Amino acid sequence: MITMLSNDTRGAVAPALPGAGRLRPLGLDEVTITGGFWAERQHVNATATIDHCDAWEQRVGWIDNFRAAAAGTVAQSRTGREFSDSDVYKLVEAMAWEVARTGDPRLDARIEELAQLFESVQEPDGYLSTKYGRPGQEPRYSDLAWGHELYCYGHLIQAAVARLRSGRHDTLVRVALRAADHVCEAFGPQGIASVCGHAEIEVALVELYRATGQERYLEQARLFVERRGTGTLPDIEFGRSYYQDDVPVREATVLRGHAVRAMYLTAGVVDLAVESADDELLEIARRQFATTLARRTYLTGGMGSHHQDEAFGDDFELPPDRSYCETCAGVGAVMVAWRLALATGDLAYGDVVERTLYNVVATSPAADGRSFFYTNPLHKRVPGQEAAADEVSPRALSRLRAPWFEVSCCPTNVARTFASLAGYVATTDGAGVQLHQLVPCRVDTRVDGGAVRLEVETRYPQDGDVVVRVLEAPDGPWELSLRVPAWAQGATLDGAPVARVARATDLRAGQEVRLTLPVGVRTTLPDERIDAVRGCVAFERGPVVLCLESTDLPTGLEVDDVELVPRSVVEDSGRGARVRMRAVAHADAAWPYGGAADDAAGAVPVVPDATARAVAPRGEDLAVELVPYHSWANRGPSTMRIWIPAG
Amino acid sequence: MITMLSNDTRGAVAPALPGAGRLRPLGLDEVTITGGFWAERQHVNATATIDHCDAWEQRVGWIDNFRAAAAGTVAQSRTGREFSDSDVYKLVEAMAWEVARTGDPRLDARIEELAQLFESVQEPDGYLSTKYGRPGQEPRYSDLAWGHELYCYGHLIQAAVARLRSGRHDTLVRVALRAADHVCEAFGPQGIASVCGHAEIEVALVELYRATGQERYLEQARLFVERRGTGTLPDIEFGRSYYQDDVPVREATVLRGHAVRAMYLTAGVVDLAVESADDELLEIARRQFATTLARRTYLTGGMGSHHQDEAFGDDFELPPDRSYCETCAGVGAVMVAWRLALATGDLAYGDVVERTLYNVVATSPAADGRSFFYTNPLHKRVPGQEAAADEVSPRALSRLRAPWFEVSCCPTNVARTFASLAGYVATTDGAGVQLHQLVPCRVDTRVDGGAVRLEVETRYPQDGDVVVRVLEAPDGPWELSLRVPAWAQGATLDGAPVARVARATDLRAGQEVRLTLPVGVRTTLPDERIDAVRGCVAFERGPVVLCLESTDLPTGLEVDDVELVPRSVVEDSGRGARVRMRAVAHADAAWPYGGAADDAAGAVPVVPDATARAVAPRGEDLAVELVPYHSWANRGPSTMRIWIPAG
Repeated sequence: MITMLSNDTRGAVAPALPGAGRLRPLGLDEVTITGGFWAERQHVNATATIDHCDAWEQRVGWIDNFRAAAAGTVAQSRTGREFSDSDVYKLVEAMAWEVARTGDPRLDARIEELAQLFESVQEPDGYLSTKYGRPGQEPRYSDLAWGHELYCYGHLIQAAVARLRSGRHDTLVRVALRAADHVCEAFGPQGIASVCGHAEIEVALVELYRATGQERYLEQARLFVERRGTGTLPDIEFGRSYYQDDVPVREATVLRGHAVRAMYLTAGVVDLAVESADDELLEIARRQFATTLARRTYLTGGMGSHHQDEAFGDDFELPPDRSYCETCAGVGAVMVAWRLALATGDLAYGDVVERTLYNVVATSPAADGRSFFYTNPLHKRVPGQEAAADEVSPRALSRLRAPWFEVSCCPTNVARTFASLAGYVATTDGAGVQLHQLVPCRVDTRVDGGAVRLEVETRYPQDGDVVVRVLEAPDGPWELSLRVPAWAQGATLDGAPVARVARATDLRAGQEVRLTLPVGVRTTLPDERIDAVRGCVAFERGPVVLCLESTDLPTGLEVDDVELVPRSVVEDSGRGARVRMRAVAHADAAWPYGGAADDAAGAVPVVPDATARAVAPRGEDLAVELVPYHSWANRGPSTMRIWIPAG
Repeated sequence: MITMLSNDTRGAVAPALPGAGRLRPLGLDEVTITGGFWAERQHVNATATIDHCDAWEQRVGWIDNFRAAAAGTVAQSRTGREFSDSDVYKLVEAMAWEVARTGDPRLDARIEELAQLFESVQEPDGYLSTKYGRPGQEPRYSDLAWGHELYCYGHLIQAAVARLRSGRHDTLVRVALRAADHVCEAFGPQGIASVCGHAEIEVALVELYRATGQERYLEQARLFVERRGTGTLPDIEFGRSYYQDDVPVREATVLRGHAVRAMYLTAGVVDLAVESADDELLEIARRQFATTLARRTYLTGGMGSHHQDEAFGDDFELPPDRSYCETCAGVGAVMVAWRLALATGDLAYGDVVERTLYNVVATSPAADGRSFFYTNPLHKRVPGQEAAADEVSPRALSRLRAPWFEVSCCPTNVARTFASLAGYVATTDGAGVQLHQLVPCRVDTRVDGGAVRLEVETRYPQDGDVVVRVLEAPDGPWELSLRVPAWAQGATLDGAPVARVARATDLRAGQEVRLTLPVGVRTTLPDERIDAVRGCVAFERGPVVLCLESTDLPTGLEVDDVELVPRSVVEDSGRGARVRMRAVAHADAAWPYGGAADDAAGAVPVVPDATARAVAPRGEDLAVELVPYHSWANRGPSTMRIWIPAG
């Protein structure tokens, strides 16, 4: 199923760049996002978030750890968790994509400054860590389960790949190549026969192979993928499934354990399969991800229902009030879905990318880009406390968005994703161009027949019109494809019905096509096996999941005090929805379980039907606004829910 | 509201023995359980569980830790968690109640043997721990948040109190008194002004005060209670609420944080309030517990919905598939409810004791008393794996009942509760006798007017007849009271309707009364705010919560594949229930969320009502047995659920 592309793809500025597969992604040098929802996020990211992260990493000492390591004092002074080096590398990756996007010379200089710091810490054999190996520290690789050394290299390498793809062969690249060579020595066929407790090195090594052509990196990634699941890591309370070491990758049928680990691993597995022309492995990863989407994913695209181990639960174990949905798992799901789209050519993966970007990744940062959600619950029963602007928060849910965390993987993950977002918009298969994300943008690329330049104009997802104007096109045959989301029943291209993919052939310069999507609000019901949302309805508007926020209820009512009026009409509000609700008079009994209201003493018990309720009385009808979930908690502490009981 | 009792209660063999309050508990010397459900558990406990625990504590080295400590080698050889000493003390407490119950000389000798071991470790100033204070170990009290030193003393002291109440003043008592004196020195007004991260010392010190009359123990308990919530422990990821150090006890309105910690603390608070005639504090504890029952307790009486921190969730955050319901939290809830019954005279607390004993504490041990559940979920989606007979399990849910755990607090907690169970059955207020638990038993006590001897005959909860025969009674006025459970609508005493309490006055020797309770199966609906069970029904039979176990479904069906037939008749089966169910044809779509079946493209969206569903087709009707929840997973791996969807 894997075909080599005819055109050489080396050099394109893209966050993932397979050497094979159905589709070649267009890079940041070929796609520019020109406006709308995502351009706004890119602007806030560039002007606020990246500097915010840099300032915090200085403040909490994670950058100083490198200085102290170079000075020989880090064993005494080190701050942060065992993986804090990785957050500095992810910051550098975000900067690298931002430089690729805008050429910002200040960030370019900052990357070099930080890279020289890394270089000053790197040992002669390429080993690089502020946490291990010095007098007063634990030895190198003494704790593969939790030490995160290979995980940290992975992020260093991904940052270096961003530089290589931007045409830089700088200090950062040299440091990363030495680290990668060291990994191949230390963990190669003659080395330590184990894996890192947190997958990440796998995807990074394949990408480094792509960016350099050095086969040894691909072979090392293969070793890591094939070793995982063979029990080389210790058993732990959460089980080896926590780090996907319970079952060999080729034998697993679904993703499980720590959600971020599972996503990073799977991104690496897809990359390895593609570069190895291993169709069997690709199909395995495709199925694992498909089953995960069908049974273990929240409506938002969020993944992970266990707080204890930040992990997937069993199939359909998806309680909204205990949803975890780590922001980084969302970033990882985008990485996996995009890679599968490129490998298989199936534009439907764009639905997953879109859902996760709008409803997980975009939910994390506040409007000002200076505070973040680590977890993204679908139901908040008690208003979170405002986090102080100078407070380092635990990852827990008790706070609103926080400026920084003790485990602060999410802010820099959002930053690197937003900076490289143009790399997830469009592809070419040689014969044509595919638009996976419907964003206002300019596309400037080549297909087999010649140059293609496009301009996409749209207010999507606010309205459903997407106009693609052809500025330049080949004279011969070529095809423009646009993803039509699965929910878009009744979509049209220039008035003709389309489903899943809208195609236009042989457009010429000056022509345009208009895709029209029914983005108006719609009702959504859950699979009956998701117990926690039985009898509830959710509302979506285009790709945007809506929520009820207490801010939009009359004073004194929280989101758990109301229900929808059954059979009432739902109005689209242009941004969210307007629904009819009514307050519920709660029983407030000493014991919250009782007989059905019509249960008489001595009567033969009869199963009540699904509409039976312990209390009957209701309040008056209210008209209530539902707002985009990604915007919640930007107006102060509130309660919130996505799934709303239908009375 | 607190009245001193007229009769001197010192000396009675009871697991809690207030010096004040409305009711005096009858001890193991006054009540003997003679048959039925609980006598069976006591028999298995005596003949299997206690020896099982002793053998495992030897096997995993927790008893050897004391030997090594005495020999000076423990810093090198110590096994188990920081609180493993406490599990040895709880085993001794179980043995002590068993000796009190049966006089077993073998256990009596074993207690002395272990106590001499403890004595050999105890330091001259009374400090006693195998974990801290020696060369190569962390210093004493260097980690109050997690070190559990005071928690361990608490269990040592409770074991000693059991001996004192059985009339023994032995080595164990001497060791415990020296430890208690040391605590008063080290943490007194001039000592360390903090508390233990795990409450337990509080209730133990008040009980030791009761057993010895030494005021200093009561005063030390008061210091600990008043210090808690003042932030003397560090802030942690779970928040200070984890160890109830977030809010002073007198300012808290509900129990929160780690459920076992919360229960042990509250037991101590009630005891302190009672001994101090502090009606305000008693009322505070009463309200906290009432709110916890009304909003944070599962149908089984189980407490705790967070796995991460073994903690209570927010109000109504009670998802069955993520329920934790630690066995020890059930033991703690019994301790609190019983103390509140004694303090307030309200027999309704017996409902909580009964519910929790039948549905949490009795669920933990297997029928053979040699394996245990640590957590007691209300819904199991995937069959647990059988734990190997020689395996030390993590506390996690992935296993069926296990012989032993890395954190093995539950087995010995069950053992000490079962051994002392007769102490939770009956009380006197001087004017009469109150029967809180309806068990076959003999009662031999005194009221103000003279001796009372009773014989209770019943097959309850299998059937609802409870006959109390008077063997001896005063000539003058006295009153017999029997708790009537809240669910027992239509109960009668000798044919006359009774509710909540059934009273008979001035019975004479030879007379009998017959309480008749409608124990037949009944349907139960949840408060609407418990989202996770909306549209579901539970079934109870008397005090016993029933469940659907896949073992009772046709081959190939799991519990999540069926639903109840609405408006079908529920039959009582004498032990459980027989209900009509039908298989549900699941959608198995690529994405588990979709539009309502009647949702047409382009139509104005309308809120579906509560009966709307994504898939319609159903299978044929099945007759299915529901069984007592406490008996589940005794027939091999299975799926299970208590709350069942009503179609």
